[in-house]
Amino acid sequence: MAANNEKSMESIIALCKGRGFIYAGSEIYGGLANSWDYGPLGSELKNNVKKAWHKKFVQESPYNVAIDAAILMNPRTWEASGHIGGFSDPLMDCKECKTRHRADKLIEDYQMAQGEEANTNGWDKDRMEAYIEEVQLPCPSCGKHNFTPIRQFNLMFKTFQGVTEDTASTIYLRPETAQGIFVNFKNVQRTTRKRVPFGIAQIGKSFRNEITPGNFIFRTREFEQMELEFFCKPGEDLEWFHYWKDFCFNWLKSLGVKEDHLRLRDHAKEELSHYSKATTDIEFLFPFGWGELWGIADRTDFDLKQHMTFSGESLEYMDPTTNERYVPYCIEPSLGADRVLLAFLSDAYEEEPLEGGDTRTVLHLHPYLAPIKVAVLPLQKKLGEKGREVFAMLAKEFRVDYDETGSIGKRYRRQDEIGTPYCVTVDFETLEEGTVTIRERDTMQQIRVPLEGLTDYFREHLAF
Amino acid sequence: MAANNEKSMESIIALCKGRGFIYAGSEIYGGLANSWDYGPLGSELKNNVKKAWHKKFVQESPYNVAIDAAILMNPRTWEASGHIGGFSDPLMDCKECKTRHRADKLIEDYQMAQGEEANTNGWDKDRMEAYIEEVQLPCPSCGKHNFTPIRQFNLMFKTFQGVTEDTASTIYLRPETAQGIFVNFKNVQRTTRKRVPFGIAQIGKSFRNEITPGNFIFRTREFEQMELEFFCKPGEDLEWFHYWKDFCFNWLKSLGVKEDHLRLRDHAKEELSHYSKATTDIEFLFPFGWGELWGIADRTDFDLKQHMTFSGESLEYMDPTTNERYVPYCIEPSLGADRVLLAFLSDAYEEEPLEGGDTRTVLHLHPYLAPIKVAVLPLQKKLGEKGREVFAMLAKEFRVDYDETGSIGKRYRRQDEIGTPYCVTVDFETLEEGTVTIRERDTMQQIRVPLEGLTDYFREHLAF
Repeated sequence: MAANNEKSMESIIALCKGRGFIYAGSEIYGGLANSWDYGPLGSELKNNVKKAWHKKFVQESPYNVAIDAAILMNPRTWEASGHIGGFSDPLMDCKECKTRHRADKLIEDYQMAQGEEANTNGWDKDRMEAYIEEVQLPCPSCGKHNFTPIRQFNLMFKTFQGVTEDTASTIYLRPETAQGIFVNFKNVQRTTRKRVPFGIAQIGKSFRNEITPGNFIFRTREFEQMELEFFCKPGEDLEWFHYWKDFCFNWLKSLGVKEDHLRLRDHAKEELSHYSKATTDIEFLFPFGWGELWGIADRTDFDLKQHMTFSGESLEYMDPTTNERYVPYCIEPSLGADRVLLAFLSDAYEEEPLEGGDTRTVLHLHPYLAPIKVAVLPLQKKLGEKGREVFAMLAKEFRVDYDETGSIGKRYRRQDEIGTPYCVTVDFETLEEGTVTIRERDTMQQIRVPLEGLTDYFREHLAF
Repeated sequence: MAANNEKSMESIIALCKGRGFIYAGSEIYGGLANSWDYGPLGSELKNNVKKAWHKKFVQESPYNVAIDAAILMNPRTWEASGHIGGFSDPLMDCKECKTRHRADKLIEDYQMAQGEEANTNGWDKDRMEAYIEEVQLPCPSCGKHNFTPIRQFNLMFKTFQGVTEDTASTIYLRPETAQGIFVNFKNVQRTTRKRVPFGIAQIGKSFRNEITPGNFIFRTREFEQMELEFFCKPGEDLEWFHYWKDFCFNWLKSLGVKEDHLRLRDHAKEELSHYSKATTDIEFLFPFGWGELWGIADRTDFDLKQHMTFSGESLEYMDPTTNERYVPYCIEPSLGADRVLLAFLSDAYEEEPLEGGDTRTVLHLHPYLAPIKVAVLPLQKKLGEKGREVFAMLAKEFRVDYDETGSIGKRYRRQDEIGTPYCVTVDFETLEEGTVTIRERDTMQQIRVPLEGLTDYFREHLAF
């Protein structure tokens, strides 16, 4: 597995911590497992990722609308979805040294150490236990081979709602946003008067009590999803499956992700979830290797039918032109906001050699994603008044930074490092002639522009 | 308590459910306590509320930056903040009929029934028990007077993180976003190189296991906060307290909230929290009466000092020009996104008599808040192609709706009801002369505009 341009996770994490993209969660208390807090630049970047998704998947779409359902749902939802019964990790303990392990991870690590391709997709408990027995797989902690059988550990966080713990009802933090969409299918269809095919999108937090979170924000217990459930007529589902697969792929490319850092992996028949007719993962070449970025699945009518059974409500759709009744099929492109943010950061990061032997760190983020769009830099402190005027004018429309400390070269480097696409320098000609210099991040080219044209210039160049 | 223009909550809730603003949460399973899901229009409206707050409190502010901290935090945070020790409701049981009650609510309901003003602010356990004894307060369920003593019930939702329940650590869903800001004070100050005074803003979900949620989205167990912690030099705090109080009040007015539906209530000395030097609530006249909308508090250096004590880390600030060291004071304007959304909806709702005896329901939402900015309405179905072209052009910039069903009058009414500020009708002149009609929601006036000027027209009229 080749790393992404030999960029190290370490340098990206260091930049994130040092410049205020992402800090360790609850850091002054020693953190909390693998939890992370988005700082001033990270929260803007994440907002922009969500906005870019909403713009293309909802705002510009003739098909889709968005909802924002509660994180806490009636627990019957998770019976219907199968999460109470089946959403679990296979755990085993080493009887010798008392350490606990995830069986699938144990096998995959072993396979990789043997130079084989790691793959336990679709393996059930029995197959994993048989494999571990067959190769006499040693405990990674003590080297002995003496494991308990596999036990399933449910990944949902549970909590209690109501007055006292004993009488309160057990509820769960949602492990995915998708079910908030399915339970609202009828409400949305009725109130929007949408006709199939149409989609319901949702952005929001989900929670999974993962045994082994890691790789920075790649896998965390608390994470944010951007999911679309696209409802179509049975029989037309595979066509839409391909439509959305292409749509997702193009969205990534249009935001600057390099095509050779992307690959499609179709799930083989035996690794498909029982409800899925087809699934493709878009994988991305992270600095630590290829990882799943976006899962696109044909979920058939599984979810709606489950909720019909468990709720007793009909979730059938009636086609008003043909009077046909059916339960729609559903295509689900499911993306993690934190994970795709890490992909954008990885692809954007460069330590670029300059003429004269210097190096600059630069984030080549798509301008629509960049946390700060424009930095206003007065050349001297006495130009501060004019500088703040320019800041106030641009801040009406864009997220703008203002910096009057240090040499202009140093200030350019600071903005390059956080991905700011444009710097505006305010100088004495600004006072005399009403013009400013715009300096572009990637080319480092400069042009002179009148102040009146500035807002329009950026509107045009920051569009997506 | 006068109701807001005699509008009933019932008609607002009916509109919300009927048009896809807000549905009961997990409705097909009979709901979950007082939980609510935002539908297609509600989720857009809520996004716009958050954007309007971010725009004025962060983007255009020379002082403030935003963060997005995790919901799950190290539990030491809640020891330091006092939530583990003190964040609780006073509960008592009726020994006769076994019902459970909140003592402060019991007293307030009793006071109101006596025609007195309801007020238990700042009352401690002993004072409440004494009052209940003194007036021989009867149980509202059985009428007898035989209560247990008051017990405190902690309002934080708890959950378990880690591999099994017995070995896992107990953690909490955050009951407020503020603490995610305080624990990151040093990180943010260091990485942004901001100088005091500066503020850190945050938008995000919080959770409180309320005994009596209610009044639609006014009080829910899961809710979204928009909080600012503004750090300043001790001694300058009261000046900034007044600055932010005015700023918040003006923000509401600039988004169309009627001034006579707002009032300021300063907390009397005895009802101030122990850490607070001054607190003012901005109250709003909801359809069910006056309710707290926005709390603005001078929290002094209480929070930072608590976290210094509990974490052992210094959260002092050093002024780089004077070399003075101090722990900053903090002004906190704290607003609920759901609650202010309800205020906007309440003030916007009107059943307006028209000439000829008809009535139209119209939401006079500020254009920046309106979920749909423009509806594109082709006069006849054969104009659909042109209509969809206009939709695609406008959807590049705005959230647009498209509707070709029913009479044009009916379609106007549908858009009025959801607050769409502009309708664009596409007719045969559009094909011939490239012009469209723009119809404005509040005045119902129409003007004719060339297609090329449409985007600029809306940009100008939708600005905030």
